[in-house]
Amino acid sequence: MNIQEIAAKAKQASIMLAGTSSQLKNAALSAIAKALKDNSAKIIAANKEDLANAEKDNLAAPLLKRLKFDESKINGVCDGIESLIKIDDPVGKTTSALELNEGLELYKVSCPIGVIGVIFESRPDALVQISTLCLKSGNATLLKGGSEAANTNKTLAEVIAAASETAGIAPGWLGLMETRDDVAEMLNLHKSIDLIIPRGSNEFVQHIMTNTTIPVMGHADGICHVYVDSNADLDMAVNIAVDSKCQYCAVCNAMETLLVDKASAEKFLPMIKKTFDEKQVEVRGCQDTAKVIDVKAATEEDWKTEYLDMIVSIKIVDDLDAAIDHINKYGSGHTDTIVTKNTDSAEKFMDLVDSADVFFNCSTRFSDGFRFGLGAEVGISTNKIHARGPVGMEGLLIYKWKMKGSGHIVADFSENGKKYTHKKIDKTFKI
Amino acid sequence: MNIQEIAAKAKQASIMLAGTSSQLKNAALSAIAKALKDNSAKIIAANKEDLANAEKDNLAAPLLKRLKFDESKINGVCDGIESLIKIDDPVGKTTSALELNEGLELYKVSCPIGVIGVIFESRPDALVQISTLCLKSGNATLLKGGSEAANTNKTLAEVIAAASETAGIAPGWLGLMETRDDVAEMLNLHKSIDLIIPRGSNEFVQHIMTNTTIPVMGHADGICHVYVDSNADLDMAVNIAVDSKCQYCAVCNAMETLLVDKASAEKFLPMIKKTFDEKQVEVRGCQDTAKVIDVKAATEEDWKTEYLDMIVSIKIVDDLDAAIDHINKYGSGHTDTIVTKNTDSAEKFMDLVDSADVFFNCSTRFSDGFRFGLGAEVGISTNKIHARGPVGMEGLLIYKWKMKGSGHIVADFSENGKKYTHKKIDKTFKI
Repeated sequence: MNIQEIAAKAKQASIMLAGTSSQLKNAALSAIAKALKDNSAKIIAANKEDLANAEKDNLAAPLLKRLKFDESKINGVCDGIESLIKIDDPVGKTTSALELNEGLELYKVSCPIGVIGVIFESRPDALVQISTLCLKSGNATLLKGGSEAANTNKTLAEVIAAASETAGIAPGWLGLMETRDDVAEMLNLHKSIDLIIPRGSNEFVQHIMTNTTIPVMGHADGICHVYVDSNADLDMAVNIAVDSKCQYCAVCNAMETLLVDKASAEKFLPMIKKTFDEKQVEVRGCQDTAKVIDVKAATEEDWKTEYLDMIVSIKIVDDLDAAIDHINKYGSGHTDTIVTKNTDSAEKFMDLVDSADVFFNCSTRFSDGFRFGLGAEVGISTNKIHARGPVGMEGLLIYKWKMKGSGHIVADFSENGKKYTHKKIDKTFKI
Repeated sequence: MNIQEIAAKAKQASIMLAGTSSQLKNAALSAIAKALKDNSAKIIAANKEDLANAEKDNLAAPLLKRLKFDESKINGVCDGIESLIKIDDPVGKTTSALELNEGLELYKVSCPIGVIGVIFESRPDALVQISTLCLKSGNATLLKGGSEAANTNKTLAEVIAAASETAGIAPGWLGLMETRDDVAEMLNLHKSIDLIIPRGSNEFVQHIMTNTTIPVMGHADGICHVYVDSNADLDMAVNIAVDSKCQYCAVCNAMETLLVDKASAEKFLPMIKKTFDEKQVEVRGCQDTAKVIDVKAATEEDWKTEYLDMIVSIKIVDDLDAAIDHINKYGSGHTDTIVTKNTDSAEKFMDLVDSADVFFNCSTRFSDGFRFGLGAEVGISTNKIHARGPVGMEGLLIYKWKMKGSGHIVADFSENGKKYTHKKIDKTFKI
């Protein structure tokens, strides 16, 4: 099958999946977990092939570590599936109910989005997590993993598809894309695909966004800030800034720019410089910063840069307003933190900073689906339409309006004087 | 100011609007209503100019009627503003709250989307409705109305902007685009504009969608169906089909194709044909339909056509599954109705038809923001991302994640054994 056929089959399956019972979906999830364990030898063998190829290609050690998929990883994803089974089915939830007239009732009911195309990095765990999250939320999915993991992904997808389809899920709900050409072709299939979630570099996400009319949920950049207010606990500020920068610097929720209120600068900058030096963080600063501590000069370009490295830029700002302006101008709408003892300042910061995650007195590094208690995460969205910030299962749902009447027609209201009651009712949808 | 400057100013204003109190927004809405009444002579004079130009240009009578903006229309929009003042501020609502650890609390809080560009048809009432809806929901807005209403719109926008800004709303929150070039330029301003809502013809909406990377909320088409099941009350089915087609045929929620179960066809088709003939509806039918009643032959093209006219196509289908398949293949995801006495069939239809509005035993014409009790309507969305079906104020909101801690850092969890509690808390966000 080519991608067009795979996508059309997924679309067909997605219609059936939207009406599949929780019981059947959970039974399929159990079957998947069992099949992954039963086929662990086969999966690990496929992964060993990928590892051998990757070593031949001199893949960097951290990437090799992410690629490795062994018994303990299999147990890990199976634990994830077990917790997915336990949570409530998110489909079919009534979120509002209104009587329009006697016997005419309108319900807003959650439903799956349809077919979701996900492009993810080399970690094969992601294939299991994303596909099972899609299944639980009633979505069909087309997946493309990193080419380094091609054998592992193929085996995993086969095992998952076979087990779920034997359990009664509509065939074709899980499609695997294997090449970059497959991905390029997918971008044109707006009749079959409802949402694309690209995970990867900023350039890659931008590339996807500009080359498709299908809605894309992706984060473009993670330029996160910590703002140390005039009225901050400076020891706390050091702790938070260091955690935000250094706890894991290669990720999107790490701090890139530290904004320091001019009233705090003289005392705070030497404190943070000392810790950054110990941690071997390269510090770049604005002209005012350079008057207080020894730093490389930061340029305009620094404020726009996601280093993803042990580099930080520091800017002294006049006040809270200037900090908010800087973040809204240079930030990427991801995660920004204020450190302050002044709750009015915190409130203003959290209202006016136009980012998905706005934090008060805690590290930017908390911006994460697991830490947010969302369970598995399909990604972090800097979109402002639909879903924002860490996205769990809720981000894979939309709603439909279901209305039931007993022959109601509009003419009776428009021409014959019938009135809309618009009375809220406390009911969940049921025919 | 050019459009780029107007948009940049709107962006700036949107930041302030996001933090503006309900009290101030409501005071501004009151001031707007008062100013509209105080300036009614000026508004009506501007409208008379537009009407005179439109008559010179031989604008059709129904369009002239929509263009007219007199004392009673002014009172109408002011009533709308009064009801907008009364409803709860939708901004700042906590929709979920979770303790991550002692003193570390995560809140999901509703917030405005930002700057919304709306392109609407000639009706000047729309300018007042949309701008006040945006103001109440904390969004800045750039508006482009029909060129026939240029003078009326300019006067209305000036009155609204002046009154609201005097009341204390950030200047520039309401920008007016006046030419097609302005709209073309807006499509490139993805840094300043967060969402575009185009209202107008299908071609126009498609044109906008393919020419911008800004998210677009628009309905592409309204190809709505009524399906008469094997087990339908046929008198009810006639009523619903006639209302869906004829009550107002030029609108997106009117029925275009009538699907009839083969078990109902022989009895139902002569009944509906009689009424359609009385109403002078042109009936086109599939081959099987032509065996029962006298119709023009429908072609493949008919199933894909939004007539927006007194024309209907009829297809006989084998069963419920075939009806669902037809709708998912040819429909536009707008509004579809099943007429049946069988609740299992209704449930299946409503689960598997992939449309924004799925109705049971009532007319497709109910698909409308006012009838749905949403108050003013910004449009009807056939998107599946973000908002779907009739869109009221809720569709102008998104959320942010607000988290408050007391110095919490990730390292304590990742390296020092601190545990996430992930305990639901029953609190609304407050610093």
